[in-house]
Amino acid sequence: MTSTDSPSAILTISCDDQPGIVASVSDFLFQNKGNIVDVDQHVDREAGIFFMRVEWEINGFAVAREEIEAALASIIEKFSMQSSLYFSDVRPRVALFVTRDNHCFYDLLSRHESGELPMEIPLIISNREDLKPVAERFGIPFYHFPITKETKQGQETAEIALLRDHEVDLVILARYMQILSPQLTEAFPNRIINIHHSFLPAFPGARPYHSAHKRGVKLVGATSHYVTEDLDEGPIIAQGVTPVSHKDTVHDFVRKGRALEQSVLSRAVWLHLNRRTLVHENRTVVFG
Amino acid sequence: MTSTDSPSAILTISCDDQPGIVASVSDFLFQNKGNIVDVDQHVDREAGIFFMRVEWEINGFAVAREEIEAALASIIEKFSMQSSLYFSDVRPRVALFVTRDNHCFYDLLSRHESGELPMEIPLIISNREDLKPVAERFGIPFYHFPITKETKQGQETAEIALLRDHEVDLVILARYMQILSPQLTEAFPNRIINIHHSFLPAFPGARPYHSAHKRGVKLVGATSHYVTEDLDEGPIIAQGVTPVSHKDTVHDFVRKGRALEQSVLSRAVWLHLNRRTLVHENRTVVFG
Amino acid sequence: MTSTDSPSAILTISCDDQPGIVASVSDFLFQNKGNIVDVDQHVDREAGIFFMRVEWEINGFAVAREEIEAALASIIEKFSMQSSLYFSDVRPRVALFVTRDNHCFYDLLSRHESGELPMEIPLIISNREDLKPVAERFGIPFYHFPITKETKQGQETAEIALLRDHEVDLVILARYMQILSPQLTEAFPNRIINIHHSFLPAFPGARPYHSAHKRGVKLVGATSHYVTEDLDEGPIIAQGVTPVSHKDTVHDFVRKGRALEQSVLSRAVWLHLNRRTLVHENRTVVFG
Amino acid sequence: MTSTDSPSAILTISCDDQPGIVASVSDFLFQNKGNIVDVDQHVDREAGIFFMRVEWEINGFAVAREEIEAALASIIEKFSMQSSLYFSDVRPRVALFVTRDNHCFYDLLSRHESGELPMEIPLIISNREDLKPVAERFGIPFYHFPITKETKQGQETAEIALLRDHEVDLVILARYMQILSPQLTEAFPNRIINIHHSFLPAFPGARPYHSAHKRGVKLVGATSHYVTEDLDEGPIIAQGVTPVSHKDTVHDFVRKGRALEQSVLSRAVWLHLNRRTLVHENRTVVFG
Repeated sequence: MTSTDSPSAILTISCDDQPGIVASVSDFLFQNKGNIVDVDQHVDREAGIFFMRVEWEINGFAVAREEIEAALASIIEKFSMQSSLYFSDVRPRVALFVTRDNHCFYDLLSRHESGELPMEIPLIISNREDLKPVAERFGIPFYHFPITKETKQGQETAEIALLRDHEVDLVILARYMQILSPQLTEAFPNRIINIHHSFLPAFPGARPYHSAHKRGVKLVGATSHYVTEDLDEGPIIAQGVTPVSHKDTVHDFVRKGRALEQSVLSRAVWLHLNRRTLVHENRTVVFG
Repeated sequence: MTSTDSPSAILTISCDDQPGIVASVSDFLFQNKGNIVDVDQHVDREAGIFFMRVEWEINGFAVAREEIEAALASIIEKFSMQSSLYFSDVRPRVALFVTRDNHCFYDLLSRHESGELPMEIPLIISNREDLKPVAERFGIPFYHFPITKETKQGQETAEIALLRDHEVDLVILARYMQILSPQLTEAFPNRIINIHHSFLPAFPGARPYHSAHKRGVKLVGATSHYVTEDLDEGPIIAQGVTPVSHKDTVHDFVRKGRALEQSVLSRAVWLHLNRRTLVHENRTVVFG
Repeated sequence: MTSTDSPSAILTISCDDQPGIVASVSDFLFQNKGNIVDVDQHVDREAGIFFMRVEWEINGFAVAREEIEAALASIIEKFSMQSSLYFSDVRPRVALFVTRDNHCFYDLLSRHESGELPMEIPLIISNREDLKPVAERFGIPFYHFPITKETKQGQETAEIALLRDHEVDLVILARYMQILSPQLTEAFPNRIINIHHSFLPAFPGARPYHSAHKRGVKLVGATSHYVTEDLDEGPIIAQGVTPVSHKDTVHDFVRKGRALEQSVLSRAVWLHLNRRTLVHENRTVVFG
Repeated sequence: MTSTDSPSAILTISCDDQPGIVASVSDFLFQNKGNIVDVDQHVDREAGIFFMRVEWEINGFAVAREEIEAALASIIEKFSMQSSLYFSDVRPRVALFVTRDNHCFYDLLSRHESGELPMEIPLIISNREDLKPVAERFGIPFYHFPITKETKQGQETAEIALLRDHEVDLVILARYMQILSPQLTEAFPNRIINIHHSFLPAFPGARPYHSAHKRGVKLVGATSHYVTEDLDEGPIIAQGVTPVSHKDTVHDFVRKGRALEQSVLSRAVWLHLNRRTLVHENRTVVFG
């Protein structure tokens, strides 16, 4: 989990497990004088899938930045890898979707401001105007897309166009209180992160704190996951819980859940931005 | 959460919330020179229900032990209280139901042996014989009731008779792998405690660790609850979670869950034995 | 832990434990038609001290708001109580002290903005100017008191005067990186809350994450406490931990600690603002 | 964290970080048809040390079990590695040291019985006779070494001889209430595991729950660590915490701590037995 000040290349790989993968990648980096900063690997033995994330310094590496992909091509082809190459100095462009609750919104903005979250935030989108003043305070363009059952399809189409105009890599739903339709989720596969205010799969859908209170649970949870077509069913990135008791009203559940939601969401976003999440089918490999 | 060496009386109360309850009970104890060891109260404002647990020393109390109920009668009647009176030196008689997994079983036996859990264990019941040697090691009678679909009804009838013969107050399902039928759950309302190896209501029913693994959760949980007719739906007493990752197989989930199950179950049993749990509808008030 | 929309009175009490306290207070409220919203009590048996917090609705109460203290006087005198009376609609006036880290600062400001933390923030004080833009964004006056060894005494004297001018009830050190001298801590006894970035009493003093990393701990912690003359030795209000591993550098400890510090500090502040903390000697009773 | 039914070889390595290590080891296994079951690596960049644990199936491996060390010799020499080679079907021989508390003792015995902890327990050593009946119940030889200041030296010498006679690989102090002298700790470097009932480095030494209660902490902890000459200062393997409140007496701290101590100790022991802990200076790398 090291970060260095000098820029690094990050390669993520998944492929069928087979002999020689690590030896090949290691040898490639060794031969090209790659100074490895961090490496993680995992084999899902049941599914027979190999996962790897390796990060090495660009400075001193024998292959020029723009030629790395080509240099890796034969290895990638040989093992039929799905792979992605990133550079730590190219910060992902992120759109925040918000509605009315401000806690996750402020938390992401402050972590962005402090440099903890390496991202650009070219725009904020909301179905309401409540948080417009906050966006303005931070000098980030705020787009208001009011949504009704009738306008949803059209508004989402406009949102997608806007996200593409801004070359957005990642969408974060920071307590965005609208269900995305498939056109939007399919436009950004494994690139929309949501925070759901329950310990999924318990209490999916609307008003999870109310359901949790009714059930009489002794812990409330929060789950950050990639958004798929199936509501609250996408690959889980991070989860947390906090204790509650019979003394807590639904209002207290909501209050106690806030700090939890912030912390779980910001952890998931950090992991994604640092390319530490790999998705296979409906599960994540998280190289924390 | 104080315990004293001298015996104490414990009164638990629930009733419609109304003015004067605490004043009446406090005054009763004050007038009779009751030295209060511990007192807890709670009002569920939504439901309008008042809950109280008060514990006081018997030594020095102006009312004789066997006359306390009568002395309280007018207060209980006035406020239409549901109430129970216990004495700390009368240890509940507990039957342990087990199947094959030994971890919760050993944990309860060792906490009983060390004096942490104030109970008698007159008998152990199992649908298998695997843990008979453990019962023998501890010198506790072990009854084997093999159960098939056909014999279930009859065997449970026999179990109920046996439990009554032994004047059992509480049944603990210490990873007992049989679903109880209504005749058994109704015979011991709010007096059967189960440990379910998931964070309920997530993953009810069979093989929760398998389901949790398939879903790709990042925490596994355990839930101790009173058993009702509805499987895994009874009032929750205690819950806990422990982190897991993509590296963990189902086998690892099971292993990591063991310490959690032990700790959640023994906490719930301790709370029950010390009369710190009150049930209203399908939720508990836990005066921990 | 209930809050109602109508204003309430909150009485906190501590005194030597003795018979009749609860009966007296309960009777006082009952006789005056006080609708109790919440009540908690605790007896520290070792020290022989009784603690109580009771909250009741002002509407409908037979004693006028400004006459409650006088009406209680005989009870308070009888039991030699230390007591405080608050009203839920009188919001404490809070000064935030900050230095450079923005995470706790933003967290408190956003919880204030959302209404979670019932307080006024008339001013912000800092020994640096880094966070002045944040204060300005929120429209809160920012006072810069640069501090050197030579100027400390004088600057703190000026700060105390400023805090008194603004009728400040509570000071929150939101990662304020200066040690307060006795003149300041004594001016606000049990009214200065700090967040220390370790699980106290482990790693007191400067650079706790560095020390924790060096020691090779597997959890990092945060502690919120009242500030006393003895650095990091004051009464603890709330604590939390988060897991770390050998993979984490000191930089990662710092990052992972941020969400924890926010959550522990905001919990402690919420408890204080709602008058749920009572201090006796160097420990707190927290009626959470 | 996978385990297979077929036996595996486990190699642990630490050495100065340098290019080519992973490539060399990977290539060695690849060339010899090693089916890797699990691999973990870590670089401590500050110290410049490389750590690795790799586990592969013996079945099908081209090098015979007894020749693996020789086959690895050139790699080990080339990189000046400190290395150990283990086989999963050779179970470590473990001595349990106990005194009076039975909870960790029973927990280890039950996990041993269920097969969770892959070890042999040839003997139990105690400075008291309290737990002799438990040892007898499990049919494990129990040796009583009463210890006074005068006899300590001699008794420990006898213990060391006994441990060597039984070819003991690992000593577990399962709430053994005697401080080991250097002759014993030096005889088993990084092979004595202790459970200390606090969140170290807070509350080292005797009676940590009493100190924790006096300090008014809101969480109590437990720490499992390798024992070194410096009391409670050895490399930490695992830590945990559990919440406490002002309601808890020291007696409650002790009770709540029990489940925690069990769970933290058994986790540490499992990690050690599966060769997932590497020690460098005073810290552990834990490949959990």
